[in-house]
Amino acid sequence: MTDITDKEAQHLHRLILFSDAVFAIAITLLAIEIHPPEHWHGVADLFGQMQHKLMAYAVSFAVVGIYWISHRRTYSRLRKANGVLDILNLVMLGLLALLPLATELLWESGSAAAALVYVGLVTAIGLAHAVAWGYAALLGDLAEPMPTVEKIYVLLRVALLPGLMCGLTFLSIITRTPWGWLGIALVLGALFLVNRLLVGSGKLSAAQIAED
Amino acid sequence: MTDITDKEAQHLHRLILFSDAVFAIAITLLAIEIHPPEHWHGVADLFGQMQHKLMAYAVSFAVVGIYWISHRRTYSRLRKANGVLDILNLVMLGLLALLPLATELLWESGSAAAALVYVGLVTAIGLAHAVAWGYAALLGDLAEPMPTVEKIYVLLRVALLPGLMCGLTFLSIITRTPWGWLGIALVLGALFLVNRLLVGSGKLSAAQIAED
Amino acid sequence: MTDITDKEAQHLHRLILFSDAVFAIAITLLAIEIHPPEHWHGVADLFGQMQHKLMAYAVSFAVVGIYWISHRRTYSRLRKANGVLDILNLVMLGLLALLPLATELLWESGSAAAALVYVGLVTAIGLAHAVAWGYAALLGDLAEPMPTVEKIYVLLRVALLPGLMCGLTFLSIITRTPWGWLGIALVLGALFLVNRLLVGSGKLSAAQIAED
Amino acid sequence: MTDITDKEAQHLHRLILFSDAVFAIAITLLAIEIHPPEHWHGVADLFGQMQHKLMAYAVSFAVVGIYWISHRRTYSRLRKANGVLDILNLVMLGLLALLPLATELLWESGSAAAALVYVGLVTAIGLAHAVAWGYAALLGDLAEPMPTVEKIYVLLRVALLPGLMCGLTFLSIITRTPWGWLGIALVLGALFLVNRLLVGSGKLSAAQIAED
Repeated sequence: MTDITDKEAQHLHRLILFSDAVFAIAITLLAIEIHPPEHWHGVADLFGQMQHKLMAYAVSFAVVGIYWISHRRTYSRLRKANGVLDILNLVMLGLLALLPLATELLWESGSAAAALVYVGLVTAIGLAHAVAWGYAALLGDLAEPMPTVEKIYVLLRVALLPGLMCGLTFLSIITRTPWGWLGIALVLGALFLVNRLLVGSGKLSAAQIAED
Repeated sequence: MTDITDKEAQHLHRLILFSDAVFAIAITLLAIEIHPPEHWHGVADLFGQMQHKLMAYAVSFAVVGIYWISHRRTYSRLRKANGVLDILNLVMLGLLALLPLATELLWESGSAAAALVYVGLVTAIGLAHAVAWGYAALLGDLAEPMPTVEKIYVLLRVALLPGLMCGLTFLSIITRTPWGWLGIALVLGALFLVNRLLVGSGKLSAAQIAED
Repeated sequence: MTDITDKEAQHLHRLILFSDAVFAIAITLLAIEIHPPEHWHGVADLFGQMQHKLMAYAVSFAVVGIYWISHRRTYSRLRKANGVLDILNLVMLGLLALLPLATELLWESGSAAAALVYVGLVTAIGLAHAVAWGYAALLGDLAEPMPTVEKIYVLLRVALLPGLMCGLTFLSIITRTPWGWLGIALVLGALFLVNRLLVGSGKLSAAQIAED
Repeated sequence: MTDITDKEAQHLHRLILFSDAVFAIAITLLAIEIHPPEHWHGVADLFGQMQHKLMAYAVSFAVVGIYWISHRRTYSRLRKANGVLDILNLVMLGLLALLPLATELLWESGSAAAALVYVGLVTAIGLAHAVAWGYAALLGDLAEPMPTVEKIYVLLRVALLPGLMCGLTFLSIITRTPWGWLGIALVLGALFLVNRLLVGSGKLSAAQIAED
C-alpha cells in the first residue's frame, strides 16, 4: 500500500463523505412526504389509515439502509478512487435519490405496476452499485490486494445480494405468496455452499471470513 | 486498544458521520412544514397564530438535540463498530426520521391521542438507542474497557434517561399537571443516589464522574 | 495544548461536523419553497414576478453564509467542547433552522412587521452564537490560550458583528433609507479604532491581526 | 508545504465538508418536487407522463455531479483557504442551490425561455466556480506549487469546461440540432491540441497529465 499518494486517499475519503450525505438525505426524505390524515379518531384509526404509508416507509428505509451497509462494506475495501469511480458512484446515487418518489408511487397506487417500478428501481440501484465495485476491483485496480475470486465473491455477496434480497422480500410481501421467501432461502443456501468451497480451497482470505 | 484495526475504527467513524447527517437533516426538517398563516395583523397576532407550531417545533428540536448529545456521548465510548450495530443504529435513525411527521400530527391535532403517539415515538427512539448501546457494550464487545456496572450505568443514565425525561417533560406540558415534573425530580434523585453509591464503592471510573 | 485528551478533541470535531450539516441544510432549504409562477411571458416577466422571492433568498443565503463563516472562525479558536457548549450551539442551530420560515414570511408579506420578525430572528441567532462563544472562551475554558481582551474582541468582532451588519443592511434595504448604511459605517469605524488601540497596546496577538 | 499551519489546513477541510453537504442536499432535492401523476395505466403510460420530469432530473443530476467532480478536482489542488475563498465558494453554492428551482421551471414550462434561464444558471455556476479557483490559484496563493500556465490550464479545463459542456449538451437536447455536439467536439479537439503543446513544452506537470 506504499504506492498510494495522500491525494488519492483523500479522493476516496471525499467520495465516501459525499455518498454518506446523499444516503442520509435520501433516507430522511423518505418520511417527508408522509402527512397525517385530516380526520381520525383514536390511535388505532390513525395507524389504520397510515398503514400503507408506514409500511412503504419501513421497506424503503430498510432498502436504503441495506445499500448504505453494502456501500460501506465494499468501499472499505478500496484504497483509492478515480474519475471513473466518481461517475459510476454518482449514477448509483442518482438512482437512489429517486427512491422517495418510487415509495410515494407505491403507497398511493399500491398496484402491481407500481410494485414493478419499485422493484425495478431497487434492482437498478443494486446493479449500478455492482458495476461500480466491479470496475473498482477488476478494471480500475482501486481495491486493496485480494485474489480475483474474492473480488467476484464480494461482487456477488456484498453488491448484488442486497438488491436481490430486497426484491425477493418485497415480492413476498406484495404478492402474499411464499415464493419470495423460498427464493431467499435458495440464494442463501447456494451462497453458503460457495462460501464453504472457497474457504475449503483457501481462496477466501481470513478478513472476508471474519466479516461474514 | 492495540487490537483494533484501522478498518474497524474507520467503520465506527463512518457510522458516526452517517448518523450525524441523519440527525442534522431530521432536526432541520422539523421546521420545513411550518408555514406562516395567510392572514395576520401585527407581530403579536402572528405569534399567537403560530404558537402551537413553534412550541411543537421547540419540543421536537430539544428531543432531537438531546438524542444527538446522548448518541455522541455513548458512541464516544465505543472503540469499533460491526454489522449488527449498523442495523441497530439504523433502526434508531429510522424512528428518529419519523419525528417531523409526529410533530406535524401534534400541532395539527393537539389531542391526547396525538400526544400519546408523540410520546410513544420519543420513547421508542430511546429504547432503540438503549438497545444499540446495550448490544455494543455488553454483547458485541465494541466499547472501550470499563466495568460492567459502568456499562449498565451508561445504559440507564445516558441512553434511557433522555427519553424518560422527554416523556415526563412533555407529559407535564400537555396535561398541565405537575406529575411529570415530580417524576423527573424522583428520577434525578434516584440516579444521584445510585451515582453516589457507585462512586463510593469505586466502581465508577473517574472519566465517567468527570463527564457527569 | 498537551492536556486535551483525544476524546475532547473528537467531541469538538463531531460538534463542528454536526453544525456544518445543519448550516448546509438550512442554506439549501432556503430555495426549496420557491416555485416558479404559473403564468409568465419571457425571461424579464419571470424575473419581475420572482423578484421578491429571489431577493429574500439572496439576503437569507448571505445571512446563513455569514454566520457559517463566523461559526468557523470562532470554533477554530476552540480546543475542546463540553456538554454545555453542545446545548448552547444547539440553541443557535434551532434558531437558524427557522430562517427558511422567516424568509417565506418576508417574501409573502413584505410588511414592516414581517421585516421586524426577520431582523429579530437574525439578531437572536447572533446573540445565541455570541453566548456560545462567550461561554466557551470566558467560562468554560474551551478556547486556545489568548488574553481576555482578545476573547472579548472576538466576541464583539466575530460573533456579534455579523448579526449587527445583517440587521443594518437589511434595515437599509427595507426602509430604503441610508440610516442602516450609516450605522454600518459607524460600527466599522469604531471597531477599526478599537483594533488600532489593541494592536498599539500589544494586547492583540499576531494571529488575530493576520486574520483581520 | 511546510509553511501551512494546522489551522489553515483545517479551514480548507471544513470548507470542503460544508460544500460537499450543500452539493449532496442540492442533488437529492432535485427529485423531491417530482410527484407521480394522479392517473396512469401501466408502466409505459407512467413513464410517458413522467418523461419530461425524469429527463430534467437526469440532466440536473448530471450537472450537479459534474460540478461536484470539478469542485473536488480543483480544491484537491489547494493547500489552504481564507475568508475570501469562503465568500466566493458560498456565491457558487448559492447559485447551485437554485438548480432545483430552475429544473422545476424547465419541466413545467419546457419553453425556450425556460431553457435559457436554465442554461444561464448552469453557466453562472461555472463562472462563479472559475472565479473561486482563479482567485485561489492566481491571487490568494492558496494552491499547491505549480507553474502559472498550469493554473490557467486548470481554470479552463477543470473549472470552465464542465459548464461549457453542460450548456452545449443541453442546447443539443433542447433544440434537437447537432450544433451543440459539434461545439463539444471542437472544444475537446482544441483542448487536446493545447494539452499536447503544453506537454511538449514541458510546462504541464506529470500529475496533471496523469489526471487527464
